[in-house]
Amino acid sequence: MTPNSSEDFPNLLPNYKLWLEHNGGYVFGPGAYALLKSIHDTGSISEASKALKMSYRYAWGVIQKIEKKLDAKLIIPYKGGKEGGGGANVTEFGLSLMDLYSKVNDQFSDFIKSIE
Amino acid sequence: MTPNSSEDFPNLLPNYKLWLEHNGGYVFGPGAYALLKSIHDTGSISEASKALKMSYRYAWGVIQKIEKKLDAKLIIPYKGGKEGGGGANVTEFGLSLMDLYSKVNDQFSDFIKSIE
Repeated sequence: MTPNSSEDFPNLLPNYKLWLEHNGGYVFGPGAYALLKSIHDTGSISEASKALKMSYRYAWGVIQKIEKKLDAKLIIPYKGGKEGGGGANVTEFGLSLMDLYSKVNDQFSDFIKSIE
Repeated sequence: MTPNSSEDFPNLLPNYKLWLEHNGGYVFGPGAYALLKSIHDTGSISEASKALKMSYRYAWGVIQKIEKKLDAKLIIPYKGGKEGGGGANVTEFGLSLMDLYSKVNDQFSDFIKSIE
């Protein structure tokens, strides 16, 4: 991507970070999306935080911050299960939030490709 | 903006940060654009850094980092002038970079409004 006026202008490409806001404040961005997706895929906050190389405490904090801001649960932890260690399911609300972010991000991604 | 499936989903709006990359690395974002625009408007790094509440040293560092990455001058400092204190002019290259960023940012801004 170069301006029309200059032939030896360096090649520059646009990139972006996308997030969702609620009442004018940051709520949900790429980090939270990746975490929630990993919890959904692995069924466990512990596995998800390991996969994303963050501490369990940090991952749990990310989830709780969003839950507080939106006054809704993103995940339901449970005890027991096949391995006996418990796990976590992403709620319908959490899945809707993931879908929304993913949809907007895809639109952004398509748009940025169209202007490069 | 809410998913189709849920009526009491909280209202969420997308927001973004846009930047330009060169050879896969961050080069020029909203902070650098604001600084360069302010230097162009005031004719002075000193005035621009005051207006943006950053130190002269920091502002100068922002400019030099971009100049180094793109191997081109963004501004030409000069001595003397009407007030005797000198100032700085934004180069044609710097103006082209501002135009490019501004153009892409306008496209992003229009796009985000269209999907809200």
